Amino acid sequence: MKLVEVGTVAFDAIETPFGKTDKIIGGAATYIGLAASFFIKKSGLISIIGEDFPQQYIDALNERGVDTEGLEVVKGGKSFFWSGKYHDNMNSRDTLITELNVLEHFDPKVPDTYKNCDFLMLGNLSPQVQDKVIDQLETRPKLIALDTMNFWMDIAMDELKKVLQRIDLLIINDEEARQLSGEYSLNQAAGVIMKMGPQNIIIKKGEHGALVYHTDGLFSAPAVVLDNVKDPTGAGDTFAGGIMGYLAQSGDISFKNLKNAVVAGSALASFTCEAFGTDRLMAISKEDVEKRMEEIKDLIRI
Amino acid sequence: MKLVEVGTVAFDAIETPFGKTDKIIGGAATYIGLAASFFIKKSGLISIIGEDFPQQYIDALNERGVDTEGLEVVKGGKSFFWSGKYHDNMNSRDTLITELNVLEHFDPKVPDTYKNCDFLMLGNLSPQVQDKVIDQLETRPKLIALDTMNFWMDIAMDELKKVLQRIDLLIINDEEARQLSGEYSLNQAAGVIMKMGPQNIIIKKGEHGALVYHTDGLFSAPAVVLDNVKDPTGAGDTFAGGIMGYLAQSGDISFKNLKNAVVAGSALASFTCEAFGTDRLMAISKEDVEKRMEEIKDLIRI
Repeated sequence: MKLVEVGTVAFDAIETPFGKTDKIIGGAATYIGLAASFFIKKSGLISIIGEDFPQQYIDALNERGVDTEGLEVVKGGKSFFWSGKYHDNMNSRDTLITELNVLEHFDPKVPDTYKNCDFLMLGNLSPQVQDKVIDQLETRPKLIALDTMNFWMDIAMDELKKVLQRIDLLIINDEEARQLSGEYSLNQAAGVIMKMGPQNIIIKKGEHGALVYHTDGLFSAPAVVLDNVKDPTGAGDTFAGGIMGYLAQSGDISFKNLKNAVVAGSALASFTCEAFGTDRLMAISKEDVEKRMEEIKDLIRI
Repeated sequence: MKLVEVGTVAFDAIETPFGKTDKIIGGAATYIGLAASFFIKKSGLISIIGEDFPQQYIDALNERGVDTEGLEVVKGGKSFFWSGKYHDNMNSRDTLITELNVLEHFDPKVPDTYKNCDFLMLGNLSPQVQDKVIDQLETRPKLIALDTMNFWMDIAMDELKKVLQRIDLLIINDEEARQLSGEYSLNQAAGVIMKMGPQNIIIKKGEHGALVYHTDGLFSAPAVVLDNVKDPTGAGDTFAGGIMGYLAQSGDISFKNLKNAVVAGSALASFTCEAFGTDRLMAISKEDVEKRMEEIKDLIRI
């Protein structure tokens, strides 16, 4: 397996200045797997759901090459549920409800066919769960990437710092980078975080793009300038999934290829923002993604 | 005269999360003239000051090729004074004090030697004053750029809309673009503003760079990623001055040259942020600016 993604497969209820949803399908691993599927034929998903999760949606993941052997279904259990409300600037949000449900006792089991993966994406989950996945691998992946959030910094900083020592690429937003490092300047924050373990850091800045700190240099990635951002939920996971899918496709983790991977992730994330949930990601083609990647490159061509 | 700049020459008192100043030298025209001087030998400054303004500072402007024939000195008058406090994110600020003083009855007089300028930079001032300067020109400049702020939108929107019809390039920040257009999306805001007159718009996003809307396309300019931002006061004026100086140097207003001009403006603005007031701008060399321009271009090279 070239790529394995770990994260939630869940229900979301979202409110933005542009609309509101009931419970819709979401979760980090869902977005990561879907985004990566534009670049690789198959990836393996590790997550947990309850019996309330619609089979047709699992089928849709499988059809796109997202293998769900690693997706545990708990009999009689309820799937993870998150509800949030975005501020007017769409770059920050408040969590309204977090019902862990089956996620509370999630003990990830890595299928044998995933244990020699080349790339591992540890989506936003408890650091303990992220750590347990690494423990079960038979060979060290070429690249381990990790996403996390302020929630884990608040309640499990020690565990987070432990798993950070084992990864190569951290993908977090600017606010999280500041909280994790205790530094306001993103440059200084990146410096502090590198000492915690990851030698490559991508700091996401929402509509303002991302800063890509690679061992070989710094890249300032632009974001697509969208006419309408309907819902940024899942954009960060889509971004990470696009990056990892792009890297796994070639196996090339050079600075130059990471830049292109970030452009791919940005392109995919911009589609996710154009509608609520996974609607756009389910509807677009590879050609749509490639066209938008060229548009992003044009934005920074002098 | 290749370039004429209009704006305040003033005293500022500034508080940021990193420090606080007493009254120091500031003003839009000051920063514009100083920034432009890195690219052109001479520019003409139109402004007004009181007798309280130190002669040594006017000398310093003259030494850098900023001609002050258009700088009116009011006997017994007091110079404009602005005081502000920056929020933690350094991208927004509150105005604490605005003492117009001599600026209250400013009736700009354009010296004969300025009346056929190729480039005109209307720095942030009342739209009526900006309009009066255009009225006095003998020939239409190749490019008229204008900066403004929410204050003028609140109290003089009609006058602002009148002068907007006469300019080619509007340089404002994201918050101002949203207020002026009534649109949240910056793309849509740019579209609305173009219908008001200016066919080129630069939307500044502070530490996140700028969006450059030219008749020939869109450029996403990165900002320098600074370790330490001490004080962003004057950064916007420095940015505009750098752009106009760079354009005036060659007379070339193509999309490609505007992109390079914006890189020049960003480089200069980053220096302004590194210290309070004009301290860094007064200390750096042309080579420092060129080196930083290359660093900015490296940030977006794939």
